[in-house]
Amino acid sequence: MALELYHDAAGFRSACESVRAHGGSLGLVPTMGALHAGHMALVQAAKRLTTKVAVTLFVNPTQFSVGEDFGRYPRTLEQDRKLCESNGVELLFVPSVEEMYPPGECTRVRVTGITDGLCGTFRSGHFDGVATVVSKFFGLAGTCTALFGKKDYQQLKVIERLVKDLMLPVSIVGHPIVREPDGVAMSSRNAYLTADERQRAAAIVVGLSSAWQSFEAGERSAPRLIERLKSKLVSEQLDIQYTELTHPENLEAWGTRTDLPERVLLAVAAYCGKTRLIDNVVLGEDPDPLQAAAAGHPSPAE
Amino acid sequence: MALELYHDAAGFRSACESVRAHGGSLGLVPTMGALHAGHMALVQAAKRLTTKVAVTLFVNPTQFSVGEDFGRYPRTLEQDRKLCESNGVELLFVPSVEEMYPPGECTRVRVTGITDGLCGTFRSGHFDGVATVVSKFFGLAGTCTALFGKKDYQQLKVIERLVKDLMLPVSIVGHPIVREPDGVAMSSRNAYLTADERQRAAAIVVGLSSAWQSFEAGERSAPRLIERLKSKLVSEQLDIQYTELTHPENLEAWGTRTDLPERVLLAVAAYCGKTRLIDNVVLGEDPDPLQAAAAGHPSPAE
Repeated sequence: MALELYHDAAGFRSACESVRAHGGSLGLVPTMGALHAGHMALVQAAKRLTTKVAVTLFVNPTQFSVGEDFGRYPRTLEQDRKLCESNGVELLFVPSVEEMYPPGECTRVRVTGITDGLCGTFRSGHFDGVATVVSKFFGLAGTCTALFGKKDYQQLKVIERLVKDLMLPVSIVGHPIVREPDGVAMSSRNAYLTADERQRAAAIVVGLSSAWQSFEAGERSAPRLIERLKSKLVSEQLDIQYTELTHPENLEAWGTRTDLPERVLLAVAAYCGKTRLIDNVVLGEDPDPLQAAAAGHPSPAE
Repeated sequence: MALELYHDAAGFRSACESVRAHGGSLGLVPTMGALHAGHMALVQAAKRLTTKVAVTLFVNPTQFSVGEDFGRYPRTLEQDRKLCESNGVELLFVPSVEEMYPPGECTRVRVTGITDGLCGTFRSGHFDGVATVVSKFFGLAGTCTALFGKKDYQQLKVIERLVKDLMLPVSIVGHPIVREPDGVAMSSRNAYLTADERQRAAAIVVGLSSAWQSFEAGERSAPRLIERLKSKLVSEQLDIQYTELTHPENLEAWGTRTDLPERVLLAVAAYCGKTRLIDNVVLGEDPDPLQAAAAGHPSPAE
């Protein structure tokens, strides 16, 4: 079946309803475009789980703070369309800003608490924008299985929370981070990096791996684990925004505890030049991020 | 068919899905219980529009401000159940507070702008609570036609807005206010009134009717129309919270304009003793509220 492209919300809604009306199940992969192998891993996982897969492609203005990269965020529609087609995506929804935020629109969805720390501390209003636009996509798509990458770990938790709290008929699947051969997490923003920056960016996953090994060897001191990560970032002159160990579900920070539990999120945001990169690993659950990358195949969606 | 009673969200969701799976359409009437003829008019309208009707019955704590009547709000479950049964309601959903707001729940839906004036000025957080709980009911119910009374006019506009903005598969129907023979708008809170207060409460509809007649006769001065309403309230010693003329859709106040357009909302909130009552009429659209009540039959749902 050829890829069906929709720019209007009503058409996309009908197409989604039609999938279910014919007895099928719908997979939904919301993206901001500039698609890469990470997104396609979500698509492939969706294809395994559902009958037909819809990708949404929308650079959502409300999730960018003032001074962030909304204007220059990479937009590669024709390339994205081809990639979706060759990956067997059935429905592609590419709305305009006016379609998603028509004049008079004035409703916001806010997930509180778990949005306070990590990226939420530094990106004012970001998760309100995410929660709002994702709610709109869920409203249009209806009953579906929606897939999100774990690179945006806090985003995944926010969306899991909003689906549960607003009692939406949506199953959320978090997909393991897809990494380049050197371990750098796939991201549309990697396109901003110069060749030198791209090399130095690997310090993030090297640092995460170093902490992972330390945790694996029994280290349960938050400051010492953080130090393992930080030293790699500093040695490659990355500007650290945050490095944090938190509860993997409610995202509460463990601070300087030296008796960490068996499963903790280690998350990082750092600037490589002018480009803000994020990455994470769930210690006690995920494999060593560097080894997983070297092995070359991300584990399947959970 | 007998009335099916659900206390759990999952069971109610399945029942709603089952209606559609069998080719039917679902009518949804969200209420806080203490059901009266106004609610049953919504049920009857729903029965005309859809295959099966679900009533939700939930005194929603998040839409009560501190110091309001959450604790003493009338709860008459057995009577409500019988009324639903005798009116042919098929599904009744009566969740606990814990079912709708389980531990860890932390998502809120906020409609901005149109929630600032009228009741929003005096009931801090009220419409966030309404928007949030109604979003949850819509999440559970899925594709449906939902009916709301126009007595809570601002609430109706907030819900219309959130459905549009969050792109929900829900059709909203606003139903004309159902009134007692003396014109007093039906309300669960009328149960709070003493016999004397109940008589004096009619000043509200008498005042609205007086303004209606004046508007009908060509009066387009906001202050003079408001004065018609206020004089009736004052003469029966009601404590006015607000009397306001606004745009009937975006609810922007017309203030002291003397060149009102052809269709305006006249809304009032007043205390009769300790009981807060609200009422309204859309001048240039609704019939005279006093005459409509005397005629004894509310006009059908739009």
